[in-house]
Amino acid sequence: MTVSMEDNPAFNRIPSWVKAKLRPQAIDIIQKVYDWIETECIPAEAVYKAQVAKDHWKTPAVMHELRKKAKSAGLFNLFLPDHFEESPGLTNLEYSCCAEIMGRCYWAAQTMNCHAPETGNIELLAKYCTPEQKEKWLKPLMEGSMASAYSMTEPDVASSDATQIGISMKIEGDTVVINGRKLYGNAQWNDEMGIYILMGCSDPTNPNRWRRHTTLIVPSKTPGLKMKRNLTIMGYDHAPEGHGEYVYENVRVPVENIILGPGRAFEIAQGRLGPGRIHHCMRLIGQTERAYELALIRAIDPRKKPRGKLIGEFDSNIERLAQMRLELDAMRLVVLNAADVMDTQGNKAGKYAIAQSKILIPNMAVRIIDECMQMYGGQGLTQHTVLPEMWTYARFVRVADGPDAAHRHQVGRDQLKTAPAFKARFDGYETRRKELCEKWGIEFETF
Amino acid sequence: MTVSMEDNPAFNRIPSWVKAKLRPQAIDIIQKVYDWIETECIPAEAVYKAQVAKDHWKTPAVMHELRKKAKSAGLFNLFLPDHFEESPGLTNLEYSCCAEIMGRCYWAAQTMNCHAPETGNIELLAKYCTPEQKEKWLKPLMEGSMASAYSMTEPDVASSDATQIGISMKIEGDTVVINGRKLYGNAQWNDEMGIYILMGCSDPTNPNRWRRHTTLIVPSKTPGLKMKRNLTIMGYDHAPEGHGEYVYENVRVPVENIILGPGRAFEIAQGRLGPGRIHHCMRLIGQTERAYELALIRAIDPRKKPRGKLIGEFDSNIERLAQMRLELDAMRLVVLNAADVMDTQGNKAGKYAIAQSKILIPNMAVRIIDECMQMYGGQGLTQHTVLPEMWTYARFVRVADGPDAAHRHQVGRDQLKTAPAFKARFDGYETRRKELCEKWGIEFETF
Amino acid sequence: MTVSMEDNPAFNRIPSWVKAKLRPQAIDIIQKVYDWIETECIPAEAVYKAQVAKDHWKTPAVMHELRKKAKSAGLFNLFLPDHFEESPGLTNLEYSCCAEIMGRCYWAAQTMNCHAPETGNIELLAKYCTPEQKEKWLKPLMEGSMASAYSMTEPDVASSDATQIGISMKIEGDTVVINGRKLYGNAQWNDEMGIYILMGCSDPTNPNRWRRHTTLIVPSKTPGLKMKRNLTIMGYDHAPEGHGEYVYENVRVPVENIILGPGRAFEIAQGRLGPGRIHHCMRLIGQTERAYELALIRAIDPRKKPRGKLIGEFDSNIERLAQMRLELDAMRLVVLNAADVMDTQGNKAGKYAIAQSKILIPNMAVRIIDECMQMYGGQGLTQHTVLPEMWTYARFVRVADGPDAAHRHQVGRDQLKTAPAFKARFDGYETRRKELCEKWGIEFETF
Amino acid sequence: MTVSMEDNPAFNRIPSWVKAKLRPQAIDIIQKVYDWIETECIPAEAVYKAQVAKDHWKTPAVMHELRKKAKSAGLFNLFLPDHFEESPGLTNLEYSCCAEIMGRCYWAAQTMNCHAPETGNIELLAKYCTPEQKEKWLKPLMEGSMASAYSMTEPDVASSDATQIGISMKIEGDTVVINGRKLYGNAQWNDEMGIYILMGCSDPTNPNRWRRHTTLIVPSKTPGLKMKRNLTIMGYDHAPEGHGEYVYENVRVPVENIILGPGRAFEIAQGRLGPGRIHHCMRLIGQTERAYELALIRAIDPRKKPRGKLIGEFDSNIERLAQMRLELDAMRLVVLNAADVMDTQGNKAGKYAIAQSKILIPNMAVRIIDECMQMYGGQGLTQHTVLPEMWTYARFVRVADGPDAAHRHQVGRDQLKTAPAFKARFDGYETRRKELCEKWGIEFETF
Repeated sequence: MTVSMEDNPAFNRIPSWVKAKLRPQAIDIIQKVYDWIETECIPAEAVYKAQVAKDHWKTPAVMHELRKKAKSAGLFNLFLPDHFEESPGLTNLEYSCCAEIMGRCYWAAQTMNCHAPETGNIELLAKYCTPEQKEKWLKPLMEGSMASAYSMTEPDVASSDATQIGISMKIEGDTVVINGRKLYGNAQWNDEMGIYILMGCSDPTNPNRWRRHTTLIVPSKTPGLKMKRNLTIMGYDHAPEGHGEYVYENVRVPVENIILGPGRAFEIAQGRLGPGRIHHCMRLIGQTERAYELALIRAIDPRKKPRGKLIGEFDSNIERLAQMRLELDAMRLVVLNAADVMDTQGNKAGKYAIAQSKILIPNMAVRIIDECMQMYGGQGLTQHTVLPEMWTYARFVRVADGPDAAHRHQVGRDQLKTAPAFKARFDGYETRRKELCEKWGIEFETF
Repeated sequence: MTVSMEDNPAFNRIPSWVKAKLRPQAIDIIQKVYDWIETECIPAEAVYKAQVAKDHWKTPAVMHELRKKAKSAGLFNLFLPDHFEESPGLTNLEYSCCAEIMGRCYWAAQTMNCHAPETGNIELLAKYCTPEQKEKWLKPLMEGSMASAYSMTEPDVASSDATQIGISMKIEGDTVVINGRKLYGNAQWNDEMGIYILMGCSDPTNPNRWRRHTTLIVPSKTPGLKMKRNLTIMGYDHAPEGHGEYVYENVRVPVENIILGPGRAFEIAQGRLGPGRIHHCMRLIGQTERAYELALIRAIDPRKKPRGKLIGEFDSNIERLAQMRLELDAMRLVVLNAADVMDTQGNKAGKYAIAQSKILIPNMAVRIIDECMQMYGGQGLTQHTVLPEMWTYARFVRVADGPDAAHRHQVGRDQLKTAPAFKARFDGYETRRKELCEKWGIEFETF
Repeated sequence: MTVSMEDNPAFNRIPSWVKAKLRPQAIDIIQKVYDWIETECIPAEAVYKAQVAKDHWKTPAVMHELRKKAKSAGLFNLFLPDHFEESPGLTNLEYSCCAEIMGRCYWAAQTMNCHAPETGNIELLAKYCTPEQKEKWLKPLMEGSMASAYSMTEPDVASSDATQIGISMKIEGDTVVINGRKLYGNAQWNDEMGIYILMGCSDPTNPNRWRRHTTLIVPSKTPGLKMKRNLTIMGYDHAPEGHGEYVYENVRVPVENIILGPGRAFEIAQGRLGPGRIHHCMRLIGQTERAYELALIRAIDPRKKPRGKLIGEFDSNIERLAQMRLELDAMRLVVLNAADVMDTQGNKAGKYAIAQSKILIPNMAVRIIDECMQMYGGQGLTQHTVLPEMWTYARFVRVADGPDAAHRHQVGRDQLKTAPAFKARFDGYETRRKELCEKWGIEFETF
Repeated sequence: MTVSMEDNPAFNRIPSWVKAKLRPQAIDIIQKVYDWIETECIPAEAVYKAQVAKDHWKTPAVMHELRKKAKSAGLFNLFLPDHFEESPGLTNLEYSCCAEIMGRCYWAAQTMNCHAPETGNIELLAKYCTPEQKEKWLKPLMEGSMASAYSMTEPDVASSDATQIGISMKIEGDTVVINGRKLYGNAQWNDEMGIYILMGCSDPTNPNRWRRHTTLIVPSKTPGLKMKRNLTIMGYDHAPEGHGEYVYENVRVPVENIILGPGRAFEIAQGRLGPGRIHHCMRLIGQTERAYELALIRAIDPRKKPRGKLIGEFDSNIERLAQMRLELDAMRLVVLNAADVMDTQGNKAGKYAIAQSKILIPNMAVRIIDECMQMYGGQGLTQHTVLPEMWTYARFVRVADGPDAAHRHQVGRDQLKTAPAFKARFDGYETRRKELCEKWGIEFETF
């Protein structure tokens, strides 16, 4: 099912300003990713599901095979930035085009080792670990032979404010003793689960509240670390990775497992705020495209003719399809712009554009996928289509990495900082207005 | 945990015009229902869930016990209209107040034999069956010792247009032979599943397309009737009742199982369009109230203080809580009005008010429950609260009994029929306007 | 054009629970109001507009005539509560039905002396004035021979918080000297303008901030009171009543003009918070009905057939018309419920229901009228229909008497007060849940 | 008030991919336009308004002066495409950046001869006129010494379907005789009004309905052409240009005034569908930015502290400001992308992107400006700010050049054309899925 570039709808939807920035080797990779998804992933969804159903927390055989094939096809770790030796050297913009396509199948990114939370974790370990730590933990992650989790959220505090993180890390000699609870973080029950990158509180009385926390590695089999239950998301267990609810009871790890040093968790957290934060959004664009295609297919389904007309012959549906297309394409521009800002101005400058993606795109995806479900009537909510899983994932991204509202607050506060300059400019208008009123003999009115 | 009427928030929320119409015995029942839900149902949710988890398609022991207790407490079949001997004689308006409270717990209505699809099925059988049929099927339904399903939707046609229903019913002597597929209808796998009330096509070439269809009873163990799979709703199997996908292969039932007679399915379908159509909506009001209470509780949770403030101290959340309250209360007025119209003007006159409930309320419930989930941040989508199940149920009601759009079309077309009268009135204004312009010496302008 | 009750669409739309509460004499008045509006007001709109265009700030002759006729027909001061001698004795619910109909024509309420701000001002003066004050000011208002304004908003403070009101009132012997600025309040330029009921600050250093303010009467011709400009609303001058921007420069009025006594402005403001606050909302329902009728008429206009179909033959428009109808009818239930609560439980108990109307209804009206305008395409925004004026008025009500957000805050804060009781009930569930888990041998899990 | 590029907020908001495409001379022009608007236009708004108020349909003196200055500063006709000799040679993308800035002041584009409908008319005349026609009509338009109108909409048909245009054009020898009615088109009453570019029906029985119409020039003083009234937009007369309602009674023009030839109106209409269609949208971005700045200024206004806090200290407003910023910036990406598509792929390829702008941007602008008005409370709707005029203009653009719904239909129909290809691809998945199910020994289920 190799598709030529010309007939590739995912390629055709790339805005022309982006196309002009894609290098030939990137175009080649985008094409390969597309063929990969269309030929190896989407048609294998039923196989994947059946294998997971059988052995719930085990990575299914089809995933093992696809990882192997993707690796040998040079489609592994595509997300890796330039400074990695193994990096294919894609820009964020180029990678976005790949990630959108990956998003068409829920687990496809994993076949290419481009899935969350691995991509963020790999970047973190690469940036902050010692060579020994890297050898032990980064290597297997990059090879795709081990899974990892980033563990931050807690049930007992407002975790969107990370300074409140409370899990206790006591340093006793060359050991750190950990006690407390965590939510989320991939399931310990998964057969490949290797390490938890844990953020905790090691120095609660430090007057500088940005120096109280430490990040360290907890191997998943460490005694005392217990996964209390699988956290379902809208009822889905998301096996075989899943999300866990964890209790740490006197979990002991060596101090060598500390990353960067005690008290430096916030430095690390900052460093994690790069492109990985919008990989989700890139993939949501592609996922929503697939939902949209399903809506189009329903619209011309010859079996579905209420009152004698195809669903796509009702102009209410024509308007719905148009509005969804328009908004989806607008959101693609938003995420591609964010990628481009990171490429051309750096991750820090991209902060606003990342927040813009993070807030707008999951909301759009939730709305559009919901509308597509509704076009399928009673069937739309069942397993007859992938739409319910898509909706659930998009809804999840609205709370992942902090709820919308927290991000909006940050953006809003930054905007308010610009207000005094506008006020000054406004006062400047008044001065000039007075001059002009005098010149033209008009009364200078004030309000 | 008996609550006096004064402190009963569900009672306090009843609008005063409704309270004035509630008879003392109804108020007494409302109070009992409230105590029942608060004391026997909500606290038993965990037990119910654990028992279902163990034996998936079996009615759990706790349900059996609660049904028995509810029956002996006189809280059984509350929905039954007056003309039933067993009816407690509640008006639709009075029953609405009960149903709202039942909605607080997903399966509570079933403890009182007031759940879908039984209520609609009981009314149908009572209205159209012969005494023999009633003895056989209606009696066990009313006793709560058997479950039933109404089976209409099909995968191969646009079922919102019922004239397209295609499952074949061939009458061969004293037997009807059934072939085809159906979607939805409670799961055959359920241990109490007794009968399918099946709508099918027995006379496809009849020139009158309203006389082509027949409704009959298919006992669930009839050979040839196979449940192909459980239809999940947003991933939930909704066990132990669930929804099935069915194949009928030469299923043979006696002609005595036909209701009312061959070709009379549409008569029966019409008769089913009564109060049962908005029991869902009544319960959704109560369910959304419970979601709202959870949001209030989150708002004052002392553990959750992002940036040092309780969630309920952020005025953005104060505004959200206000807006949800206002809309929820407005929707209660809509459903209570529909109940009252049926009481005072009959089911037929209630057609518009029923559609109004059916369209507006599930949409409102979906939005509000979603907002409540969002106030719980990362936890909101997990099993830590009942919110995800509530959302899913409300979303399901948006497609149950036909999608919103189908109902909107009906309402819109009815409105258009009133347009010519308004046009005539408008022309009347013009005639009078001309008179007045002349009288006052003003130019008569036309646009 | 007398319409029998049966054919009266405004009467038919009254919910049945309300109809049952209308006394025969009220039904008779509703019918008369309907005929009045349809025969004397709507067809006279062009005359009214032409007369105002000629002499901008003068009450037009047609208004004088209609007031006279309405008075002699017993259709004057219908809003007056029971305790007024002149009251026709309508309940709030009955008056709501009248007010909805009045809302169909922008200035119709004024022909019946039922317009803002007179209704609120009449109630205030009746409640708090001495017999001498009443003779002087209340009488002409009730006769409709003088206009009045309530003057509270100021440009220099956040007036939605009335304790900030800053206009200075210095009591010097038997005179009060007023200095400061006010916004809004009917135009001084109007030929019938008689009095300003002014709220100001007479005792700025009083430790009790609820005792700092005084309400008094300022006759409109008092020297020093200057209307700086007419405040336009979305560009409309709203002549001949209009809104003014005022400067008070050493305006002197006798102390006899103080209402109730110095420092008692907040007592008076409280007393003003009755049914008058939602007369606006009642009328908006009727106004939106008229907009909706115009949309229906457009939908069947034989001249408008894009792509060969009537506008009402496009199912997108059918859905729009349905949705508008559903929401409009829901909002009628909200405002009628508020009226009924005031009737049966008093104005104070109605506080929440009033806020509910005040917040929800103007927003609904703005949206629906906007949608109706859009159905008229390019013509919709022009003077070819009354839609632009309707939209502007509805938009204005969103800020009149405080913006939506201020009211939402109040409602939200009141809701939060109920949270602890729900938390207690929730904890009660947990105790009972523990019992039940033990009884059934289920693990008691906590989240 | 010259602002350096670094401090220029309008420049800073340009996305980096666009900045990279701006040539130095374009950056220089953008800077000049910014200084022009900030120094000469915005502060002169009061003067403009006062002069128009005095002499309603006369181009005010301040406009004459500014046009002269702009011309000598090289800021005239900036929109002109490359192939014009007088063109400054800006790309659509570069011009978009200028147009956004022009949008900050309602009439600023006119000072630079970049206003509607002139820009579209100039392109049309340049493309289709003979040298004689150009000398007579194009030249004065390009010099800004004459005004023109494009006259298409009619009151008696659905003008969004241009084939229905019905105004009669009879060719009698060397004269065309015109009879009928038109809506919109700039006011004849304006002192500079020169020509109407009129689309009418010259050959109503032509079997090819795309050849029935003719476009010709009607000088504004031609006998028989009467402006019946000024069409107000939400109550605004939009003087001195305004919109007219026209009657043509035996209006006679020479056949030389026909453009391109009889029956070729649709060819001409097609040619008019270029960048001019989204100049409106470009300017709306800038206009909405100015509204947003006003909201920011209100947020820090020290006089406005309800309950003791600045408006910008309420986190509900912080969230509102964030959401507005995010959506506004997303819309800028949409319009800039459309400009870029036209630059790199041509106007025809830009059809979709133009429709996307045309539908999404006015809606966004209406919503955001409305929200900004609301943040100003009671003052927001008055002439104290420019917000009401801004809202009205944005609302107008929702119907100008066809209502949203008409454009959505076109987009939706185009999308449906792509459905069969997706269906084919979907069937391809099924084939491949079957292969994979066999390979892995999984049952091949169908739904």
